[in-house]
Amino acid sequence: MEMTAFKLVDVTDAEVDEVEERYGPLAAAVRELVDATIRSNVGDDVVGPATEQIRAITEKLRADQVDGPAGVNYNATGRAWNWGNAAIGLRNGAAPPMEVVHDPDGRMHADVHLGAAYEGPPGCAHGGVSALLLDHIMGVTASGMNRVTLTGTLTLRYVNPLPLGDVRLDAWISGEEGRKVFVDATIKGSAGVALEAHGVFIIPRWSGDFEAVVASDAGPS
Amino acid sequence: MEMTAFKLVDVTDAEVDEVEERYGPLAAAVRELVDATIRSNVGDDVVGPATEQIRAITEKLRADQVDGPAGVNYNATGRAWNWGNAAIGLRNGAAPPMEVVHDPDGRMHADVHLGAAYEGPPGCAHGGVSALLLDHIMGVTASGMNRVTLTGTLTLRYVNPLPLGDVRLDAWISGEEGRKVFVDATIKGSAGVALEAHGVFIIPRWSGDFEAVVASDAGPS
Repeated sequence: MEMTAFKLVDVTDAEVDEVEERYGPLAAAVRELVDATIRSNVGDDVVGPATEQIRAITEKLRADQVDGPAGVNYNATGRAWNWGNAAIGLRNGAAPPMEVVHDPDGRMHADVHLGAAYEGPPGCAHGGVSALLLDHIMGVTASGMNRVTLTGTLTLRYVNPLPLGDVRLDAWISGEEGRKVFVDATIKGSAGVALEAHGVFIIPRWSGDFEAVVASDAGPS
Repeated sequence: MEMTAFKLVDVTDAEVDEVEERYGPLAAAVRELVDATIRSNVGDDVVGPATEQIRAITEKLRADQVDGPAGVNYNATGRAWNWGNAAIGLRNGAAPPMEVVHDPDGRMHADVHLGAAYEGPPGCAHGGVSALLLDHIMGVTASGMNRVTLTGTLTLRYVNPLPLGDVRLDAWISGEEGRKVFVDATIKGSAGVALEAHGVFIIPRWSGDFEAVVASDAGPS
């Protein structure tokens, strides 16, 4: 099955900046609200009205909205953005969001703070959250700056629990073979390496249709 | 490394119900807000005040809150709850949340609706979100009703993209060997099976300290 298309839209970089400056702080405020909703101990007298107010705010935001998910868009300058992405989406209050740093040698890393919304075992990150972040950074690593790759297989070895708080991801290409790209990665926290991951990524035959415009963080992960 | 402890708390089932009835609707409203924050096209005149209002609501909720994540708690009747869980947390606005159904034959399944906050490739679920949900349901399947298991390795084979919308997970035990439990699982959507997963789960030596109170959905995933 072919993927839904990446979409070329007719907007300037300045217009993209403007939207990000408008919605970035909103999403950041929503992340704090998600955290407070989990940890709060206040009573009905506060929670009831808060719920009503949030519904009213949502209705105002929905007065004009896109029909469906945000998608992955790019413009004529080659800038790409995926605001709803579950791992890195700037406008996604459910995403940490992870910021992937491209090191000069082709390796990638990310420093992420995982709070109460990412819990699995008591006080620790959910193993599946580690899987989400690893899947993403490994896809970005396989794609590099100028190609599309799809995840083939991902193998995760759980070595240690990952306490919530500051965590660090590292990913690097460990080999290539025809249309296959092999990527290794780790996620570590205050108790050391928690997961070791190995992925096989595929360069699809249709990827020749894309240019470098579909690059790096906006890649399909 | 040993995991942070599950916590026995002195509350009745009725008190747990009361908190869930208070905060469940709040978390549901926050999920809608997360979605609207991604998809909205309204201008600064709406987004600016909305951001301020959300900050004010968060501050009120934080006036009394637990210090740190929600943890995994249980009471004397054996009821367990993990409100902040990234996959199933009732009070977690970043979780879909998934509801795992225990079939009579020991298999588990879940029907989940994935909206704009779970996007990866355009219009499709993030591969890492599939990994998160699979990791969780497979852990629950390995644990069953009466034991603790930890994830050893998880292998995910990406077969097809998973369009956003209604998805279905199935998981079952495919074998056991000493302290190892083997679990298979799939996630499928409108385009068929998207991922096939195989996991090896470990029954830790310290698990004898726990009883059936740490059961099912509240297991360490």
